[in-house]
Amino acid sequence: MKAKLSELGSRQSPSDITRLMAIALERPDILSLAAGFTDNASLPMEDVGAIVDEFASSGVDGKSVLQYGSNKGRERLREILARRTENFDTIGIGKLDRSRFFVSNGSQQSLYLAIQTLCDPGDIVLVEEPTYFVFLEILSGLGVKPIGMPMTSNGDVDATGLARLLEEAKKGGWLARIKALYLVSYFANPTGHCVSQESKQSIGELLNQLDTPIAVIEDAAYRELYYKISDNSKSCLALDSFKELPVLYTSTLTKPYASGLKVGYAYCSDREWTDAMMSVKGQQDFGTANFAQAIVERALEKGDFDRHLDSLRSVYEEKMRALHDSLFEPLSSMGWEWSVPSGGLYLWLKSPHGLVTDAESQFHAACLEAGVFYVPGDLCYPEGRIKDRIRLSFGVLSCDLLKVAAERFVQAARAMTESARV
Amino acid sequence: MKAKLSELGSRQSPSDITRLMAIALERPDILSLAAGFTDNASLPMEDVGAIVDEFASSGVDGKSVLQYGSNKGRERLREILARRTENFDTIGIGKLDRSRFFVSNGSQQSLYLAIQTLCDPGDIVLVEEPTYFVFLEILSGLGVKPIGMPMTSNGDVDATGLARLLEEAKKGGWLARIKALYLVSYFANPTGHCVSQESKQSIGELLNQLDTPIAVIEDAAYRELYYKISDNSKSCLALDSFKELPVLYTSTLTKPYASGLKVGYAYCSDREWTDAMMSVKGQQDFGTANFAQAIVERALEKGDFDRHLDSLRSVYEEKMRALHDSLFEPLSSMGWEWSVPSGGLYLWLKSPHGLVTDAESQFHAACLEAGVFYVPGDLCYPEGRIKDRIRLSFGVLSCDLLKVAAERFVQAARAMTESARV
Repeated sequence: MKAKLSELGSRQSPSDITRLMAIALERPDILSLAAGFTDNASLPMEDVGAIVDEFASSGVDGKSVLQYGSNKGRERLREILARRTENFDTIGIGKLDRSRFFVSNGSQQSLYLAIQTLCDPGDIVLVEEPTYFVFLEILSGLGVKPIGMPMTSNGDVDATGLARLLEEAKKGGWLARIKALYLVSYFANPTGHCVSQESKQSIGELLNQLDTPIAVIEDAAYRELYYKISDNSKSCLALDSFKELPVLYTSTLTKPYASGLKVGYAYCSDREWTDAMMSVKGQQDFGTANFAQAIVERALEKGDFDRHLDSLRSVYEEKMRALHDSLFEPLSSMGWEWSVPSGGLYLWLKSPHGLVTDAESQFHAACLEAGVFYVPGDLCYPEGRIKDRIRLSFGVLSCDLLKVAAERFVQAARAMTESARV
Repeated sequence: MKAKLSELGSRQSPSDITRLMAIALERPDILSLAAGFTDNASLPMEDVGAIVDEFASSGVDGKSVLQYGSNKGRERLREILARRTENFDTIGIGKLDRSRFFVSNGSQQSLYLAIQTLCDPGDIVLVEEPTYFVFLEILSGLGVKPIGMPMTSNGDVDATGLARLLEEAKKGGWLARIKALYLVSYFANPTGHCVSQESKQSIGELLNQLDTPIAVIEDAAYRELYYKISDNSKSCLALDSFKELPVLYTSTLTKPYASGLKVGYAYCSDREWTDAMMSVKGQQDFGTANFAQAIVERALEKGDFDRHLDSLRSVYEEKMRALHDSLFEPLSSMGWEWSVPSGGLYLWLKSPHGLVTDAESQFHAACLEAGVFYVPGDLCYPEGRIKDRIRLSFGVLSCDLLKVAAERFVQAARAMTESARV
């Protein structure tokens, strides 16, 4: 007999990432510009080794890092993270309530807990277009519908369009179904875009005018991964128009330090929502691995974390440059377009003349043929409605390999352009 | 405005553990026999330090342990765990399909994923009485109803009683609501009991006769934590009567090695169920921390793991003895009863004359007054219907402190007996 799955269980389909990774595994000769993995060569293994040595040489106290921790996370780590979050926005944020701070298995778990505790199947979450595609998978897995918000040409949410959308929802009787609004606010995955402070402020004002609460989830995973200067938009936590709204601010220590440790964190302005998320986290794992938490805590305390992050910023800028420079001349002459990001791990390309780039497209096949691999941009849109975008990640490959990958990509692009001419 | 929570979100209440821990935190003078934490002094910090040093000195390859891993877990670790699981049951188990093996954030995440993908709110899971109380919290958080199975006096499931229960369910029209049967099969939390092979075999036979699939979840978290000899009951994976049933076998590396690493694992005999759990895991965290996995993988490879486990067995036996011996004479003379376990971390006490021991009881207050703390046994029963049991954990405290805690416990027990006489 086969197990009879629940509604949630039956709803699951293999994730797009898994599918993409399977293709990559079958063809080890392919250079992947798809995976959102981090730079291997710069991983702080020596620093981590030294920290673990400290633990090992400090007797029974040191051993306690191998003991269970608490559900919410290490108190000292939460204190450090709270101060760090406060320091990003010196004005407007005030002192964050430590009891609303929690540590999670990467920021992804925070996002999952947020949607589980806010949304029933059939509910709606408003997202940017494009948005973080794994977030769309979370929604899909929980039976929640993403609706794309109207966007301005500079990549911000269009406040007028959003007002109209909310009005429609009200008239149509589905406003109460909208439970959250999701913003990837700094050096976003996939676009590299930072949401402007004005845009955030207007979103807060619009939501404040409603009778029904729409929670704001601000995903700041890449906030610290700027190349030269941090983005000067305040987070929603520090903006007046969000003071009366339920806000969840999520971030992570894994991208800016070591992704193998998988330590994320979040702050939630709403007590009951926090409590509900913590109950569910207690059921899922009763706390993120204490050892991994203790390592990042010590790395933050010692200054290792910031020193590493500092060097990482140049590493990623250099990699971005390597990929961008190799692509720029040949691709722009063919009509491809993208912006040069000031942070993050991705280039977000628009193909010329609406050339379709999804996983079933000729172009995708041509890239695989040429030995290079990307994330089809349609995965980042609700219902995949835009099909001429591509996310290229420069996190993993070395600069030399990025150049080879770029050549292969250009080769595929040329082949398509030429075949279009024939 | 406050966030409007989902049905799941609104259903959450503070966990009993959190409540218990809050009491403990308020009274640091109290000795806790409540927490299921592991022995601090024996945590393998030096071994882990040496393993991390190996990583640190092996260049870029070593660094990759700080990189993201895959959703299902490290391939090498899964291979080692599959062989280990096969070796427990040399006969009957055959070669386990590696693609059905996955690594989780402790075994707790496997249990959570299992219930999420099997049960809708209102569904039923059959449990032993008593059972692992955090599992009851998972069920409650997901809106699933636990129904206790009739038990024999030796602590096994009563097959005749179970047959009757299933018959009732069929007649009552709620058989299809029963989605799973949960067994804590080795040195169980809270009882220390091992489910006999005969009992398992009969359960499998009963479930096989049904038209509707009831999945079996075998929680083998303490299987390796025997003191002298392993329990000789085969797991459900190796028993004929389970061959046609969906079976999930869960276990963990954290209790027998280092709880701060939080690495669990599971094998599922049902492909679609496995796939559904893996999709949800992908949404929750996209894989357990790669670094923690790499450490236990290396500890298993090097033999550290088994050497440590071997010494841990004597540690826990000694601790069990320290607590048991201190309690035995005074308590048994007052009519308290318990069995001496052959593995695990708990003594499971029955109070005399039905003395109520729940969190609201006079006895619980008397223990706090005396400076000792336990898990009220009613938490381990659906609807808390049995109120004269107590779980004492000897995992954390040293033998000396266990003796002090035992004295305090005896003092509270004496006070109650005397006040009953007055």
